[in-house]
Amino acid sequence: MFPETSSKSSASPAEPKGKRPPVLVDGVTLNGPTLDIREAESFLRDAMPIIMEEAVRKATDVKEKVCEWRSPEQLKEVLDLELRDGGEANPKILQRCRDAIRYSVKTGHPRFFNQLYAGLDPYSLVGRFITEALNPSLYTYEVAPVFILTEEAVLKKMIEIIGWTEGGDGLFSPGGSVSNMYAVNVARYQRCPNVKELGLSAMPRLVMFTSEECHYSVAKAAAFLGIGTKNVYVIRSDKRGKMIPAEFEKQVQRAKDEGALPFMVNATAGTTILGAFDPLEEIADICERHSLWMHVDACWGGAALMSNQHRHLLKGIHRADSVAWNPHKMLLAGLQCCAFMVRGQTDILQRCHSANASYLFQQDKFYDISYDTGDKSIQCSRKPDAFKFWLMWKALGTKGLEERVDRALAMARYLAEEIKKREGFRLVMEPEYANVCFWYIPPSLRIDYDAKLKIASTPPQPQVAPVVKERMMKKGSMLVGYQPHGDKVNFFRQIIISPQVSREDMDFLLDEINTLGKDL
Amino acid sequence: MFPETSSKSSASPAEPKGKRPPVLVDGVTLNGPTLDIREAESFLRDAMPIIMEEAVRKATDVKEKVCEWRSPEQLKEVLDLELRDGGEANPKILQRCRDAIRYSVKTGHPRFFNQLYAGLDPYSLVGRFITEALNPSLYTYEVAPVFILTEEAVLKKMIEIIGWTEGGDGLFSPGGSVSNMYAVNVARYQRCPNVKELGLSAMPRLVMFTSEECHYSVAKAAAFLGIGTKNVYVIRSDKRGKMIPAEFEKQVQRAKDEGALPFMVNATAGTTILGAFDPLEEIADICERHSLWMHVDACWGGAALMSNQHRHLLKGIHRADSVAWNPHKMLLAGLQCCAFMVRGQTDILQRCHSANASYLFQQDKFYDISYDTGDKSIQCSRKPDAFKFWLMWKALGTKGLEERVDRALAMARYLAEEIKKREGFRLVMEPEYANVCFWYIPPSLRIDYDAKLKIASTPPQPQVAPVVKERMMKKGSMLVGYQPHGDKVNFFRQIIISPQVSREDMDFLLDEINTLGKDL
Repeated sequence: MFPETSSKSSASPAEPKGKRPPVLVDGVTLNGPTLDIREAESFLRDAMPIIMEEAVRKATDVKEKVCEWRSPEQLKEVLDLELRDGGEANPKILQRCRDAIRYSVKTGHPRFFNQLYAGLDPYSLVGRFITEALNPSLYTYEVAPVFILTEEAVLKKMIEIIGWTEGGDGLFSPGGSVSNMYAVNVARYQRCPNVKELGLSAMPRLVMFTSEECHYSVAKAAAFLGIGTKNVYVIRSDKRGKMIPAEFEKQVQRAKDEGALPFMVNATAGTTILGAFDPLEEIADICERHSLWMHVDACWGGAALMSNQHRHLLKGIHRADSVAWNPHKMLLAGLQCCAFMVRGQTDILQRCHSANASYLFQQDKFYDISYDTGDKSIQCSRKPDAFKFWLMWKALGTKGLEERVDRALAMARYLAEEIKKREGFRLVMEPEYANVCFWYIPPSLRIDYDAKLKIASTPPQPQVAPVVKERMMKKGSMLVGYQPHGDKVNFFRQIIISPQVSREDMDFLLDEINTLGKDL
Repeated sequence: MFPETSSKSSASPAEPKGKRPPVLVDGVTLNGPTLDIREAESFLRDAMPIIMEEAVRKATDVKEKVCEWRSPEQLKEVLDLELRDGGEANPKILQRCRDAIRYSVKTGHPRFFNQLYAGLDPYSLVGRFITEALNPSLYTYEVAPVFILTEEAVLKKMIEIIGWTEGGDGLFSPGGSVSNMYAVNVARYQRCPNVKELGLSAMPRLVMFTSEECHYSVAKAAAFLGIGTKNVYVIRSDKRGKMIPAEFEKQVQRAKDEGALPFMVNATAGTTILGAFDPLEEIADICERHSLWMHVDACWGGAALMSNQHRHLLKGIHRADSVAWNPHKMLLAGLQCCAFMVRGQTDILQRCHSANASYLFQQDKFYDISYDTGDKSIQCSRKPDAFKFWLMWKALGTKGLEERVDRALAMARYLAEEIKKREGFRLVMEPEYANVCFWYIPPSLRIDYDAKLKIASTPPQPQVAPVVKERMMKKGSMLVGYQPHGDKVNFFRQIIISPQVSREDMDFLLDEINTLGKDL
């Protein structure tokens, strides 16, 4: 197929083997390898059945526990954590593998509802096993040709789905928080290109905007990038958790009146607690009027873009200047898989982040060095996070991913309706995404429970959710999160993602909370 | 063993199975799971032999190629990258796995010398397979008990090895570049605690220092964190690539004379190209005199701390305020495994980075929430990178890791001596670590080759190293890096790490370069 290389490649790089005298340097004998790769393979072959049985089969079996709770003190004793001078034999290490799996939380279990990710996709997992075995780093085409190209292909398709007809650029980053940091950096660079060299001390006070419901990484980004958390002007959200556009414009005006330089807004598509979507069209209008960079944190809600039925939630996202979207969440691509993308035919990622290291990004290579994409990144070594997503996407097709999203949201709708039917349960609000927020009210609190719920937040009145959570963890039956929020006392936040989850699991969730909490 | 939980845990979370009528919500039937985990397991079982054979056995076999070169255009065609509406059947996906592995560079191959990492450790790989299957995220003890504790144990031991008798704190980050960013952020926070809230626009101009031989991530950090690359004052290094202390103090004085606020120095222990170690004791003295934060980028050189024979290279590191050290490099822990650590009994990581998200870091939990370490991080989701290192360390012991380091450095010494013996090869300098930098001079250039080497850097004179590199990549016999550096024309930088590498591979390297380049 490629005659120009096959003639050369037919020459095996094997060397002639002959006995050579041992060489001793600094007390070390250098002949032959010291790591026997056959032994290594044999250990891997012994470990794989344990991983398959304990970390895959049992870990996803609804009849097994989600977690085997031990306190930190107990677990330290079980695990024997100390690192010593001498090594341990393989059987001992295999037992350590079993223990590590046993006491770990099974995030692929059908009843793990605790975070914004869950489930296990076999294609993604195979993709990850491949990349872990090959151990590539994604700076240059030279050392990661397949992974550079699969990243490019995935980004191209995601950009198309966002609706950026003019194209875009992007990269995968280690987490949505880091993606949001990229957004802040690119936005300020676009407004003040000198900032890369001169720093913020030479700039006017920069101000950015986000809603009170945004992810906490926006504050972290402002602190880390030297903007300062007080220069994040927080915009009020409505009752459903959506940014109020008029409040946004008021805050922009306030910053201008103060003589500061407003430069960007972070709009959230799928907030962490309520699953709310900011009104992107109206936010885009305001950004246009005030020349602000519009970033959309769609880390959680981006999955809805895969669904014809639900993509209206992100109406207007094609007007964003940048988007963060984590396929490791509802799309099950496996931690971590986080895309950061910018709109248009632009080299801003390169200009903003490059440092032009001569030892890595040589300019005199024999191939097209535009494929050496590493200098767009703030990282040097970077994991090939797009590959597992690419492989899964190939296996399921866009339609298969769409079905996953539709089903998760239908399941959330089912759960919400069940909650409305059941005594002792109360929705915090109607869900529009996969976050179903609700209170459980034990029988003893059911008379006039609106008033009681308020009382419950103040000690010494016992709080319901933390106790139910403690009991479910110690029992290992499921994991679901809770939190207080604004003026609302602790409520459960049920997240529905995994295609392994069934309607029966939703019924179980409600039954189990009642079982665990009815005596409170 | 734990009677207080075993009584509860004996109750299985399984539910009674009964036929229920199908429920249709938004056009989706909700009964039962849609992902059949038995089918998923079956796919995994089919994929594992491919991974073991192609990505482990062949990928580490010296008789196989390091890479199967294809140009980006060719490879795009082979891989059929496009993502379509329909999915593909499992046999097709398995073929895609084979192709992805085939055209990937084998970084675990004994003749992959191209980067500051190489080789394959089976214990680390099993650790990674476990964490990929379990898919944990490292914010709270609640969802990652084993991985929180193993991270703590590894950091404790690394801190002990650094020599911080007063203790320390730390976390694993996605790359040494990010670790260096942490250092900048913590250092400026310690000097100006208001910066977190007020940002740099309210601060005097902050200036940091690093040597001209430092990693390029220091410039990236300065840009990203809003310091500005021009506020990184670059200190001259000596001929061996070590920072000149007197020049450092001069630069500090310069910053002070300009009215700027010097706040930190980045000292490098193991520079990227030459493998040089900055003189830490003298740098520490200067830091004390001027109240500067001393960060040591030991991402590459930190491994020498494991060796009684070589840890003198980092003499004085116990006086550093922070250290970055990547066990994924010479210690073979697998990408990514990067520790960032600060000295002393301090909560500065928490204070500097926390955002106190109520949905994640609830204060009313039933266990000791000091184990919920996620708010020390700038990330939200974070991979459990310490676990694979912990498992490998348990298997090899500290002594086993020490032997690896000693052997890699003895091998570098052997190679340097061989280079000195051979016609047509010339050391750039004597190595003191695992970087062996040398020129190859083809026979046609050997008369008066010092002069010729200079000529070779200016077109149209062909450059030797890039052509040899192109030929080795197309042949697939090995991968070794090259670069120009300062006033020196392109030279090879041979990196020796893997315990699979033998003296024969060193001989092969030199023979092969001569074979590939003798006609130039």
